[in-house]
Amino acid sequence: MGKLIDGKKISSDIREELKEKIAKLQEEKGVTPGLAVILVGDDPASQVYVRNKERACKETGIYSEVLRLPADTTEEQLFSYIDGYNKNDRIHGLLVQFPVPGHLSQQRIIDRIDPSKDVDGLSYVNAGKLASGAADGLVSCTPRGILELVKRTGTQIEGKHVVIIGRSNLVGKPVAQLFLNENATVTICHSRTKDLPAVTRTADILIVAIGRPHFVKADFVKDGAIVIDVGTSRFEGKLTGDCDTDTIIEKASYITPVPGGVGPMTITMLLDNTVRACMDHIG
Amino acid sequence: MGKLIDGKKISSDIREELKEKIAKLQEEKGVTPGLAVILVGDDPASQVYVRNKERACKETGIYSEVLRLPADTTEEQLFSYIDGYNKNDRIHGLLVQFPVPGHLSQQRIIDRIDPSKDVDGLSYVNAGKLASGAADGLVSCTPRGILELVKRTGTQIEGKHVVIIGRSNLVGKPVAQLFLNENATVTICHSRTKDLPAVTRTADILIVAIGRPHFVKADFVKDGAIVIDVGTSRFEGKLTGDCDTDTIIEKASYITPVPGGVGPMTITMLLDNTVRACMDHIG
Repeated sequence: MGKLIDGKKISSDIREELKEKIAKLQEEKGVTPGLAVILVGDDPASQVYVRNKERACKETGIYSEVLRLPADTTEEQLFSYIDGYNKNDRIHGLLVQFPVPGHLSQQRIIDRIDPSKDVDGLSYVNAGKLASGAADGLVSCTPRGILELVKRTGTQIEGKHVVIIGRSNLVGKPVAQLFLNENATVTICHSRTKDLPAVTRTADILIVAIGRPHFVKADFVKDGAIVIDVGTSRFEGKLTGDCDTDTIIEKASYITPVPGGVGPMTITMLLDNTVRACMDHIG
Repeated sequence: MGKLIDGKKISSDIREELKEKIAKLQEEKGVTPGLAVILVGDDPASQVYVRNKERACKETGIYSEVLRLPADTTEEQLFSYIDGYNKNDRIHGLLVQFPVPGHLSQQRIIDRIDPSKDVDGLSYVNAGKLASGAADGLVSCTPRGILELVKRTGTQIEGKHVVIIGRSNLVGKPVAQLFLNENATVTICHSRTKDLPAVTRTADILIVAIGRPHFVKADFVKDGAIVIDVGTSRFEGKLTGDCDTDTIIEKASYITPVPGGVGPMTITMLLDNTVRACMDHIG
């Protein structure tokens, strides 16, 4: 019988560690890490996410600004705000909350942000740094959260076989790079993979990020594997992961619940990225 | 009994195709693709590589320039030449031949090149575009050559299991991204991988890029697999690959010889990247 990985607890532990780091930064360098979030339009879900980020900053001691812009903001206007934040010394991390209205290009926006402030880690430069194993890039938050959850089980990652289902730019692909940099053997699967359960049964660590409720069953999982469930779908009115947790936990050594597994880590790693960006900035 | 993949023949076929493309570009758009190569110092091997690139350009109809700079060229001086080529409309592809003298940083040089002219595809921006599945990046030459060799066997790549041994930024990591973008299931192995032969025996397509002569034996290979040998080491005075070709060919459906497999493709894909960069430039 395996254990649940308590993402809420780990997230809260990391935030405590961050608080201490931030207090030390203020004391020793006189600097407070700062995060700016730009929200274009009034998507209700985005409003909630942005408020959660604001609150998390406040609780951890990170200075935060939220810039709310109307839905008809032009690219030129948005870029002039981004350029301003790029030069603003009080702001070490900058993100534009997605989705943005359809007349704006997500990738062009991301690549307008100074890579050293791109705390979502989604710019081509930061994706390239991650893919090249460079030490100084910013890595996107959910993949970093997943790595942290696995590390805090005490498992040695080097030499392990990590199998990832899903190859999105947000999760699957960067998480593959992260675990490769930790010296794991890494396999990336997706909808075109043949005999998926045969592949996933070779995994010491199985990461599932596809967004299909209960897609992964116990027969996908090797005895003693660690299973990280990144899925969050609404299913029969409930937030549901990609894994059949109740049966998998009989075989796995660890599995993340949904909710309360990977989810709470994402904002925490955003805070951590902001602190990193600040520390890199002051050198 | 498998077949050898004739890289020389395929390379020469592609160059013929390129000649036609270039002639058409000149006729219809009045534009000749141009490649500039900067060589710093007098490394004898680099001199040979650069001469081979010059000759290949000439034979294919690509305009080429070679700028030879002394070994004590400063970064500032080198950057001013790069900046000049970045603005030079006659030049669509630009590369600095590596290695450069120790006082210069390879990565800083690469990232100084306009990504749309970075025909070696090694800049963070192009690595990030490849990692993000963007259509408009330039991809490094050896990985592109490997993909082309596999494609020209007539094998359907989608759904195949591609196993790569080696995770360099030059070959292993970009080749993984390329085959992932072709809808293969991709596994990346390396020196820390446990029970490597057990993993490689699951490969429909096995790509070996580690630089250890005869490291891969027949028992690493599944019946009917395609094996791509990227290794080139000197062994007992001869150019030698990473694979025990004579025994593997009994099991594999195809294998590349060394020399005459992947090697001839690299400069060909550089020519192809230069033509692509030119076509993207004129739109």
